[in-house]
Amino acid sequence: MNKNVVKVGAISIGKEPVVIAGPCSIEGEKTFIDEVEFLYSKGIRLVRGGAYKPRTSPYSFQGLGNEALQIIKKAKSLYDIYVVSEVMDPREVEVVYEVCDMLQVGSRNMANYSLLKEIGRQDKPVILKRGMSATIEEWLLAAEYIVNEGNRGVILCERGIRTFETYTRNTLDLSAVVAVHELSPYPIIVDPSHGTGRRSMVISMAKAAIACGADGVMVEVHPEPERALSDGEQSLDYSGFEKLLNELHSL
Amino acid sequence: MNKNVVKVGAISIGKEPVVIAGPCSIEGEKTFIDEVEFLYSKGIRLVRGGAYKPRTSPYSFQGLGNEALQIIKKAKSLYDIYVVSEVMDPREVEVVYEVCDMLQVGSRNMANYSLLKEIGRQDKPVILKRGMSATIEEWLLAAEYIVNEGNRGVILCERGIRTFETYTRNTLDLSAVVAVHELSPYPIIVDPSHGTGRRSMVISMAKAAIACGADGVMVEVHPEPERALSDGEQSLDYSGFEKLLNELHSL
Amino acid sequence: MNKNVVKVGAISIGKEPVVIAGPCSIEGEKTFIDEVEFLYSKGIRLVRGGAYKPRTSPYSFQGLGNEALQIIKKAKSLYDIYVVSEVMDPREVEVVYEVCDMLQVGSRNMANYSLLKEIGRQDKPVILKRGMSATIEEWLLAAEYIVNEGNRGVILCERGIRTFETYTRNTLDLSAVVAVHELSPYPIIVDPSHGTGRRSMVISMAKAAIACGADGVMVEVHPEPERALSDGEQSLDYSGFEKLLNELHSL
Amino acid sequence: MNKNVVKVGAISIGKEPVVIAGPCSIEGEKTFIDEVEFLYSKGIRLVRGGAYKPRTSPYSFQGLGNEALQIIKKAKSLYDIYVVSEVMDPREVEVVYEVCDMLQVGSRNMANYSLLKEIGRQDKPVILKRGMSATIEEWLLAAEYIVNEGNRGVILCERGIRTFETYTRNTLDLSAVVAVHELSPYPIIVDPSHGTGRRSMVISMAKAAIACGADGVMVEVHPEPERALSDGEQSLDYSGFEKLLNELHSL
Repeated sequence: MNKNVVKVGAISIGKEPVVIAGPCSIEGEKTFIDEVEFLYSKGIRLVRGGAYKPRTSPYSFQGLGNEALQIIKKAKSLYDIYVVSEVMDPREVEVVYEVCDMLQVGSRNMANYSLLKEIGRQDKPVILKRGMSATIEEWLLAAEYIVNEGNRGVILCERGIRTFETYTRNTLDLSAVVAVHELSPYPIIVDPSHGTGRRSMVISMAKAAIACGADGVMVEVHPEPERALSDGEQSLDYSGFEKLLNELHSL
Repeated sequence: MNKNVVKVGAISIGKEPVVIAGPCSIEGEKTFIDEVEFLYSKGIRLVRGGAYKPRTSPYSFQGLGNEALQIIKKAKSLYDIYVVSEVMDPREVEVVYEVCDMLQVGSRNMANYSLLKEIGRQDKPVILKRGMSATIEEWLLAAEYIVNEGNRGVILCERGIRTFETYTRNTLDLSAVVAVHELSPYPIIVDPSHGTGRRSMVISMAKAAIACGADGVMVEVHPEPERALSDGEQSLDYSGFEKLLNELHSL
Repeated sequence: MNKNVVKVGAISIGKEPVVIAGPCSIEGEKTFIDEVEFLYSKGIRLVRGGAYKPRTSPYSFQGLGNEALQIIKKAKSLYDIYVVSEVMDPREVEVVYEVCDMLQVGSRNMANYSLLKEIGRQDKPVILKRGMSATIEEWLLAAEYIVNEGNRGVILCERGIRTFETYTRNTLDLSAVVAVHELSPYPIIVDPSHGTGRRSMVISMAKAAIACGADGVMVEVHPEPERALSDGEQSLDYSGFEKLLNELHSL
Repeated sequence: MNKNVVKVGAISIGKEPVVIAGPCSIEGEKTFIDEVEFLYSKGIRLVRGGAYKPRTSPYSFQGLGNEALQIIKKAKSLYDIYVVSEVMDPREVEVVYEVCDMLQVGSRNMANYSLLKEIGRQDKPVILKRGMSATIEEWLLAAEYIVNEGNRGVILCERGIRTFETYTRNTLDLSAVVAVHELSPYPIIVDPSHGTGRRSMVISMAKAAIACGADGVMVEVHPEPERALSDGEQSLDYSGFEKLLNELHSL
């Protein structure tokens, strides 16, 4: 099937594989600017950073919200980067749209059709993560909720499905990369951080993703993963991220 | 653990088992009023009726929306019933609240925390369905998103989880009834219509649900299931529903 | 579909619900005889007792093997009981056949077709447990491996399937009871001990099983579950078992 | 962890990635010899070929059994190859051992502990496939049933796990490759034929497997897949297999 190429500023997603990197959540201005400085020095232009975080427990850190959006604005004024951040509520689409270059719909909201339609009315690209137990068909139909409203910048993201296995946080379904390419025109990236939940597996699975044709990977990076406010156990530290880039370049 | 009793008008949920019944979606004024007349004649006071329908495909019938809410208002003016209807969008909470006696959060939105929090600020009971692949712990934490905002009228609804089995639409997890009673104070009802996806299984599974302690069942009923705009294959017809009531009364 | 009735001595399975009870494994002569004495005093004629135990770890207790078979022979000489015990190996069929009244194929061996065929050549009834992730169709086809060799005494046993849920050991799929009755002539019993993995859930789920039409339940009973060599956490003690019988009789 | 290297004649598994290829089942002497000739001409020394086939339905082709073993003997006399074939029954171990260079335990028999122990007493390598819903821990414990009897030539094979997804036959869990290397000394190969059930996905997933560190792949090849007696839809034809080799060599 003819494949879409989605433009994010100067970057094209759907041609050469891209790397999207950044912290799970934005934890403060200095930390995030430092992270961006590091990533930018490694050639990364597509940066992830959570402002609104959907957390299983209401007692977990929920993200800095609007404060994080201001930090993103600041970082973008200092570095020539494009930022993607998650939206959880149709009423937040407008404020995230104003600041970010791409919107993200998380796994928990893949079937939040009100949100999908609201994002479908925007003219910025969107990363649509696969629901935790969504079939590939359901995922593609969720994408149509966006596309039908006019937004053609859909990028799918495989992030692992829920199975009985407990060694990994999820089971990364790389065959979904091939299936999506067979069945639809959307670019598809892979998130080996959530897909495995284990730092030690991220690089290997990123390589596998690219090997089977993924249009990119999205990974969590943190200067001190063990002190991260969320997802530390699956975040690469800086030297781990450099290793990832080296290994991907040598593919 | 001490169990909550949730009042919906004159009805208490959490003491004697209740039966909630009605069509999957409201398909028109005459049809719905006829359905209510039938259900009321059988002693049913708690009526379900979808106005906003979350559908996997954007091309499926999406519910009558506001028109359905007006039909509910009409039916409530004619019969002494309480109506529960699903909310999918935090921006719709207000209009559904105005008309209905209970709000429902569907399976796809169990982890839509913005919606949960908005509903948590209302003072009407809410049925929180289990997510398609949610663990019991995640489900109870989702309930806390509601309760923490002040709304203590949470009723959980087991509606089947996703497994590899294809004969049934979902796998109804009745052990969740016992687990919820062990772990939390919430009443829990069971939806054997979605839980099995097969009309022929609804009565047997409803009986099993009550036998293991469920606080009620919620079933789909339609005068002509084969002509229903949604979920016909799992809806009871009128004689099937009468059989259900008889079998539950003889337990 | 016309339902088979399977005779085990004086007992018919497939008419009134039966209760099969006993320890997970036979742990010694005195213990087992005491257990049988207790069960028999409660009216139980169908006794379970493992001789050969399939264990996930080679370092776990593997059953007493032939010694257990001798103990079964002794118990049968003292009490008018029928004993069912698991066979794991086609080469063991003969010795288990000699002593026991029913053979059992465990979950791990549901697709061990060599074993199924060997058992198919015997003239004693067999309990065929559902594989941990077997579809209902695969399970019925496994039964045909037995029936095709001539043995028509197949009784199916639902014992929970594997899902992502961790609160329970397995997810008991009671809709399988209804499905099996719709699709096949075999009696089907339910094992709520393995199906939940939690003693506190066994009685409720046994009641649910009977309520939806199961032809019986099979439960693990141990005088001191906390000292059992296997499956203690899911075994009822004697007073728990008496409670189970009372609750089933009042259904 | 130190990794085992398993020798099959002149071939070492656990160092450079290997390719094991051949038909799902041996369908006749001429066909198999032709297949071997083709594979050998492409440099393949490790050939798969089923003699005893475990089939979900007793009405499906069950393999040629002993006749197939004679065909393997013939092929080995003509070409310098090593053949792996599945054993399903402890009583068949001896005859398969006599003819084949490696034994295979299929997914359905991963927890057939009697079979594992019998194979553990042999001195030829064994490929142990992961059970359809086995956790990695259970799989490693199954391997210990073999190793504890003295056979240290265990090679694990990831072949997909069972999930709710229906587009693929199974969900290939490539993170298991990384996990097995983290947790155990065993070489691990990947079977993308069973893992996906779709010919069009085999090459991509084979590349992904090697990219994340698999010690080899095992693929089904058939001169005319659409006429194969089993697994045709997931078998590569000859030109597909040549493409696979080219793509793997260019990694």
